[in-house]
Amino acid sequence: MSATLELRKLFARTEIIRAIGVHNALGARLGERAGFDAIWASGLELSASHGVPDADILTMSDLLADIRWITSAVSSPVIADCDAGYGNASNVAHMVRLYEAAGVAAVCIEDKVFPKTNSFIAGRQRLASIDEFVGKIGAAKAAQTDPNFVVIARVESLIAGYGLDEALKRASAYAEAGADAILIHAKDKSPQPVLDFLSSWDRPVPVVVVPTMYHGITGSELERAGAKLVIYANHGLRAGTQAVMEVFQEILRTDGTTSSEDRIAPLDTILELQGTSELLAHDAKYVRSGDPSTNGTRVNHSRSVEG
Amino acid sequence: MSATLELRKLFARTEIIRAIGVHNALGARLGERAGFDAIWASGLELSASHGVPDADILTMSDLLADIRWITSAVSSPVIADCDAGYGNASNVAHMVRLYEAAGVAAVCIEDKVFPKTNSFIAGRQRLASIDEFVGKIGAAKAAQTDPNFVVIARVESLIAGYGLDEALKRASAYAEAGADAILIHAKDKSPQPVLDFLSSWDRPVPVVVVPTMYHGITGSELERAGAKLVIYANHGLRAGTQAVMEVFQEILRTDGTTSSEDRIAPLDTILELQGTSELLAHDAKYVRSGDPSTNGTRVNHSRSVEG
Amino acid sequence: MSATLELRKLFARTEIIRAIGVHNALGARLGERAGFDAIWASGLELSASHGVPDADILTMSDLLADIRWITSAVSSPVIADCDAGYGNASNVAHMVRLYEAAGVAAVCIEDKVFPKTNSFIAGRQRLASIDEFVGKIGAAKAAQTDPNFVVIARVESLIAGYGLDEALKRASAYAEAGADAILIHAKDKSPQPVLDFLSSWDRPVPVVVVPTMYHGITGSELERAGAKLVIYANHGLRAGTQAVMEVFQEILRTDGTTSSEDRIAPLDTILELQGTSELLAHDAKYVRSGDPSTNGTRVNHSRSVEG
Amino acid sequence: MSATLELRKLFARTEIIRAIGVHNALGARLGERAGFDAIWASGLELSASHGVPDADILTMSDLLADIRWITSAVSSPVIADCDAGYGNASNVAHMVRLYEAAGVAAVCIEDKVFPKTNSFIAGRQRLASIDEFVGKIGAAKAAQTDPNFVVIARVESLIAGYGLDEALKRASAYAEAGADAILIHAKDKSPQPVLDFLSSWDRPVPVVVVPTMYHGITGSELERAGAKLVIYANHGLRAGTQAVMEVFQEILRTDGTTSSEDRIAPLDTILELQGTSELLAHDAKYVRSGDPSTNGTRVNHSRSVEG
Repeated sequence: MSATLELRKLFARTEIIRAIGVHNALGARLGERAGFDAIWASGLELSASHGVPDADILTMSDLLADIRWITSAVSSPVIADCDAGYGNASNVAHMVRLYEAAGVAAVCIEDKVFPKTNSFIAGRQRLASIDEFVGKIGAAKAAQTDPNFVVIARVESLIAGYGLDEALKRASAYAEAGADAILIHAKDKSPQPVLDFLSSWDRPVPVVVVPTMYHGITGSELERAGAKLVIYANHGLRAGTQAVMEVFQEILRTDGTTSSEDRIAPLDTILELQGTSELLAHDAKYVRSGDPSTNGTRVNHSRSVEG
Repeated sequence: MSATLELRKLFARTEIIRAIGVHNALGARLGERAGFDAIWASGLELSASHGVPDADILTMSDLLADIRWITSAVSSPVIADCDAGYGNASNVAHMVRLYEAAGVAAVCIEDKVFPKTNSFIAGRQRLASIDEFVGKIGAAKAAQTDPNFVVIARVESLIAGYGLDEALKRASAYAEAGADAILIHAKDKSPQPVLDFLSSWDRPVPVVVVPTMYHGITGSELERAGAKLVIYANHGLRAGTQAVMEVFQEILRTDGTTSSEDRIAPLDTILELQGTSELLAHDAKYVRSGDPSTNGTRVNHSRSVEG
Repeated sequence: MSATLELRKLFARTEIIRAIGVHNALGARLGERAGFDAIWASGLELSASHGVPDADILTMSDLLADIRWITSAVSSPVIADCDAGYGNASNVAHMVRLYEAAGVAAVCIEDKVFPKTNSFIAGRQRLASIDEFVGKIGAAKAAQTDPNFVVIARVESLIAGYGLDEALKRASAYAEAGADAILIHAKDKSPQPVLDFLSSWDRPVPVVVVPTMYHGITGSELERAGAKLVIYANHGLRAGTQAVMEVFQEILRTDGTTSSEDRIAPLDTILELQGTSELLAHDAKYVRSGDPSTNGTRVNHSRSVEG
Repeated sequence: MSATLELRKLFARTEIIRAIGVHNALGARLGERAGFDAIWASGLELSASHGVPDADILTMSDLLADIRWITSAVSSPVIADCDAGYGNASNVAHMVRLYEAAGVAAVCIEDKVFPKTNSFIAGRQRLASIDEFVGKIGAAKAAQTDPNFVVIARVESLIAGYGLDEALKRASAYAEAGADAILIHAKDKSPQPVLDFLSSWDRPVPVVVVPTMYHGITGSELERAGAKLVIYANHGLRAGTQAVMEVFQEILRTDGTTSSEDRIAPLDTILELQGTSELLAHDAKYVRSGDPSTNGTRVNHSRSVEG
């Protein structure tokens, strides 16, 4: 089953879809193995892993290169966080062609102006006009070749400080423009703004939520409130960063790794996650060396280019 | 129709298939428009365009990046010149997965040792053992997911100075290992070694020829001799290089471009080849700017990160 | 001597600097050998070679990947056509860091809005505000680490349909912001608008010209009119395209390459341009095979991972 | 101070150099902040992060792309784990040119046959002949342009099951060939084989050790035994993997992230590590929008391409 069809089937089921944010192939594999339904290729995680701010400093090509490794590593559907689409509607169309070819099941574009800044960064979050963003959604839908490819429109009204009405107005316009799902983003510690949106939303287009800030609500509660997909967007990166900081300090403090060995994954776990045994089996089956023996006699060993 | 299916249909027709060597998307588009049946992503052209020798200095990733642009630019099937497969049989399997995902219709691997040197370079051309190369073919065939994907096994026996018997022996072993076609390479100015191979070849596996050196034979003559696919492997690069050398000298000689204007493509031709009018039409349909007007009132313009 | 210092020395000499547009390493090498002083990594050529419009469809990363090969292939200074800087002033700063590290001697940014369209494409050419572009120049100059790195500010006023006064006003603002040179672009068939600019320009900042449309003026005439650098921006691509179109048609028409052989570069020329003889000499000096003979005895051939 | 000079100064000091393995820019920044002297761009970590075995499946280009981000993120010297050099001595020369240009301070190549497999994977570890590897060292040293660039020769004799004499013989040959340091790798749980090597080594060339398996020895003890550089090669990846596995399971078990919040880094820490505040300061200084106001009047708004 293709990843796009798999994602469509997840959208069709009753239970909420649970996606996990990652920034590389290893994270995607860990997410799939843990039991998440889908993989979120997070712009925040990807930019952080490259050591640059989440502000469109990485180009679409930089991100796509990483995303190709992510889609190669899992069979679960990968949803790509595509920021504001890396330019105008023609850039979006180009992007959709490349991302679809890279095996991505869904792209998510947000209604901010390029270059964007991360939604959790204080200060003005500049929104695109509805008209401009509707054009991007239309371009994305026209560019896809697989009918099951999913385009998610992310509404940043609550992030930018506008109220529920603006969010609903935008979400409606994006749904009418062909968006397959609406992501309503928020940064309050209370889930109320998102719950208000969910209770007011009466279109058949599914809603995606990202409870980074309002984490005191469970996936099941979000499901009952009407959300169809919940993304735990950056917890892998934050878990890894915390652990790495602690172990790095411990190594220097103790002048060695012995005291850290019981809190880090054994080397065998890493080797297994890399597919080492599959490689060795493949090597055993197909890799042969032996001398380049030939039965023939060299009759025409030319020493010069015959141009 | 997929590019792989298109290539399979070409192999099924009576007439010989004519492929043209290219090193970028523009060349591929020119080849398709001229009327060639297929595109040969040439290792010689690609390495030369990057300014490095044709000796596995470019990595598989370097080549693949270029090849993605080539497959994006045409609907004709693209046959990728994959040198010796960039390592062992496990590298070949990895390569096939990536190339197939990149939209390539066929890969061609040659029975030389990695790193290879171009077949037209004088000196020892080290052959892999039959056993080693049979392993690579098996790995390639096992790695493909599209049954129409084509694996071409290139026999370098004549290049390396061995005779017809060795070439036939190797070709037979490769066909039995699952190769979908055999490329018999040669560097004599006479087509006779290749014609001898063709007349001795009695398997149903089609034969590919590259008359770079023995160019005094037509495609139709090669077809009558039993060849199924003829590749004009590097003539685009050589035509372009000659013209560029001449025009560059002329510009410096005349201190301007006026005297060269009638021998270079008009700018309009370049713009058209790039798809400029399609972009402008797309822009007109989907790119809208306008003020980021919103009807809502900002109610919650947070100034700090809520972490 | 570093490429940046070399470019600074060229700016200091009396004679006009002649730069040639290229899109790959081979073109750069041909330009250097022909005798051009500098290499122009042309956005039009690069986008055309990838088969996409010259409208910021290629990302900065796509272009940079190509430009790295170009700088590797020549010792002449490479001037990179950087369109509108691929975003805002912070994107420009990031770009300058990467381009400088890639060995580029100069970047040229233009005062259009991202995403831009090629200056020779009909229709509205949206200019950035002076204030916005001054910010980009400031960011570029602050980001460079080599004091000899050159930032060229390209004025698109004449392209966008504004007159001489606006062009001079913008050029002056950019010079004051720190631009090391001003590129005044124009698309009239007459050189008069550019000559008018040159005669009115009274600042010590050198002026760059691109006589694509107004090619009926020589480099020496431009020098006498006060220009310091002339770029022949896309003639290599156009020469190559014309030749390739003709040879591709000729191959299909004659069913072979014989009739084209005298108008295409010999294979030896290509091999030489790639540095084949240098590789063979290097191989002879350093590449050794031989059996992996060891005098020691294997004493501890472990068969399991010791984790 | 350049990174190469910084590394030379570290080699010149009395105290042992402590390097930490990483696979991306974020890890490098965490390592530098924790206080490590140098960064080890680990082949095991890099391949694992891409979800592929540590067996030369990633190409040199894949690795280099990641390494460029790593060198950009820190001022500490970066030592690149370059496996067997990705081919023959000419591939090594090409690699050194690219890695030096990418800001790497040192490369480490090992005396195994390409394609290699990770030293901790059971089974035959094929060694290159001394002669072949000496050629690679010579090629690497001849290719560097910065005299402070460091080439480390990694001896795999103990890994492959040969004894101390073979290791010393090879190390001596590599030192004579110009290696700037010798890495003696081992996989016993006891440090004794490495200590034996150190006590027998009487050349002035410094020795590098990687106590992954024999971790029960401190850096100071290794210093007293004569080692100059200790690499903690893969503990960051293993710490992160363990933490991510645990948090992913916890999120699914509790249907939310609340119970994990106190064991993951706050979002503010991530934003800070990305350089967000520097970006905002840069934005404030250089990014200006405003209308593209121009004082001039459009006089010549051409609507057609003038070709």
